[in-house]
Amino acid sequence: MIGTPQTFDAIRMLVARLPEASQTCLEAVQARQAELTKPPGSLGRLEEIAAFVAAWQQKPQPAVNRPLVAVFAASHGVAKQNVSAYPASVTRAMVDNFAAGGAAINQICKANGLGLMVFNLALDIPSEDITAGPALEETDAAASFAYGMEAISGGVDLLCLGEMGIGNTTVAAAIYHALYGGEAADWVGYGTGIDRQGFERKTAAVAAAIARHKDFLADPLEVMRRLGGREIAAMAGAITAARLERVPVVLDGYVVCAAAAILHAMNTSALDHCLAGHVSAEGAHRQVLDRLGKEPLLNLGMRLGEGSGAALAFGIIKAALMCHSGMATFAEAKVAGRRNH
Amino acid sequence: MIGTPQTFDAIRMLVARLPEASQTCLEAVQARQAELTKPPGSLGRLEEIAAFVAAWQQKPQPAVNRPLVAVFAASHGVAKQNVSAYPASVTRAMVDNFAAGGAAINQICKANGLGLMVFNLALDIPSEDITAGPALEETDAAASFAYGMEAISGGVDLLCLGEMGIGNTTVAAAIYHALYGGEAADWVGYGTGIDRQGFERKTAAVAAAIARHKDFLADPLEVMRRLGGREIAAMAGAITAARLERVPVVLDGYVVCAAAAILHAMNTSALDHCLAGHVSAEGAHRQVLDRLGKEPLLNLGMRLGEGSGAALAFGIIKAALMCHSGMATFAEAKVAGRRNH
Repeated sequence: MIGTPQTFDAIRMLVARLPEASQTCLEAVQARQAELTKPPGSLGRLEEIAAFVAAWQQKPQPAVNRPLVAVFAASHGVAKQNVSAYPASVTRAMVDNFAAGGAAINQICKANGLGLMVFNLALDIPSEDITAGPALEETDAAASFAYGMEAISGGVDLLCLGEMGIGNTTVAAAIYHALYGGEAADWVGYGTGIDRQGFERKTAAVAAAIARHKDFLADPLEVMRRLGGREIAAMAGAITAARLERVPVVLDGYVVCAAAAILHAMNTSALDHCLAGHVSAEGAHRQVLDRLGKEPLLNLGMRLGEGSGAALAFGIIKAALMCHSGMATFAEAKVAGRRNH
Repeated sequence: MIGTPQTFDAIRMLVARLPEASQTCLEAVQARQAELTKPPGSLGRLEEIAAFVAAWQQKPQPAVNRPLVAVFAASHGVAKQNVSAYPASVTRAMVDNFAAGGAAINQICKANGLGLMVFNLALDIPSEDITAGPALEETDAAASFAYGMEAISGGVDLLCLGEMGIGNTTVAAAIYHALYGGEAADWVGYGTGIDRQGFERKTAAVAAAIARHKDFLADPLEVMRRLGGREIAAMAGAITAARLERVPVVLDGYVVCAAAAILHAMNTSALDHCLAGHVSAEGAHRQVLDRLGKEPLLNLGMRLGEGSGAALAFGIIKAALMCHSGMATFAEAKVAGRRNH
């Protein structure tokens, strides 16, 4: 296992030097795809997925035996600005619901054979209200990042990311506004379903946060600690650790991509081992995916978080890998190949 | 079980009077959705799917216990016009491959817990070349329709449709051209991967078929028998039987939708119990779905047939139903509901 970084400088060093995919494994998969009993390319993105997983796992025969959904939960001081349709207490209540098996993510994991682990990030200690000060101290942000790196321990070979935290679509919007400019309202969505006045409060909070921290936002890690929260930092850590250990990652929606966007701003190749599970109905998620260069696997109007979109997309990935490993070749099945024209 | 029609008149009577969805069951699902531990509407199309299945099953608690992929295979005389990248012998070879478990559809069924049944429609007797005469006699077309109705026997409670037949993207293109007008080339695609000359031959065959039969194409069932083939007629039968027995249907891609389009041309509400599993990369499938009023669940660049897109989409449906039945309510989980603003 890679050592866990204690400081932003250590994180910067990690993210600056990331391993690349295996071209050899990619080509091994492509060669086998051409022999399988189907017209070349006819499985579309399923063929790309098999090659992607092999290239990042560095295995010529891609396989996922221990897929995990890691849900990172944290509390946000900005919730006191009345930016959510639900009270801040719902964060812990939903974590309890995850443990009891009652949430959507539990059912989607069950449907797709995914493990689920919930990472609680000091739920009783909300991050600072981002309109009043930095969400986190550097030590707290770095510790959260390091904690997130644990998500891939124990032999996880594919990681779906999820999150829970009342107020975290507000901090995600602030991160996007800091990284990508424009107006606050360009990045704000309706989250769990706020009304128009709530949307105005949320937009005002994002604008106030950017105004408060504007002199410190050139550094993506400063964006992360000032405007983010513990689950954002932890997910950035999880994505980084997965890369270092060659574990493919499936991103979820609007909030997960804020963590991804921090890394992408540090190193544009930092997300090369990540697939976008879906495009969320939340706010500017499509524009964010465009910035990250990701084409989502699913577009089903979901906006729940919890890793639900990533976990649902895993069903596609599982089928893609099973097709690749389990299909017969033309020779094995004695099926005639393409004719010359 | 409903009686099987022997003539087109009997089919017309069936398709003219189809049962409707249960509004009561739809509303029961919507009421429960509002109580589940998630923001209202946040599961997007998953919520719609649960309501759709309940409304068509006429059960307030939707559940699928015996989902089936029915693959209809047939041989096409038009294959002799050299319209496919593969020889006509591949139809039977792929049917053998299905039986041996070596095809993509076998793996996708395994991934999603789907049963698979292959219906062979007189593979040794190709339908007539549509450029030379009607593909089928009325008795043969009606018998194929009736045979397709068997797909839902034995307690099947959700039906995914698929097909196999070298030459059948050509007959599907002819059906679309007959039903929707325009030019032959508007509806022709590259099928299993023909080259440009093959595309020209295919387009010419479609144009020739339409010219040959043009005086008889106002009746959708005449379109089906003159331009289609046995699997097209059988799938139209399967869709109709599913409706009569209140079994939801998942359509696959370009060829399956040609069977659906025949029914839709007879009765615009005939596909109300059908979901579009995916939009295929083949030719004009997106435009066909627009005509049928269907928004596909998946868009993954697939163009294989075999029911592969429908079977893959079933993973989404399964997860939607598990979320609906397995999630806790706010009261059960003691999670606070939405605040008043």
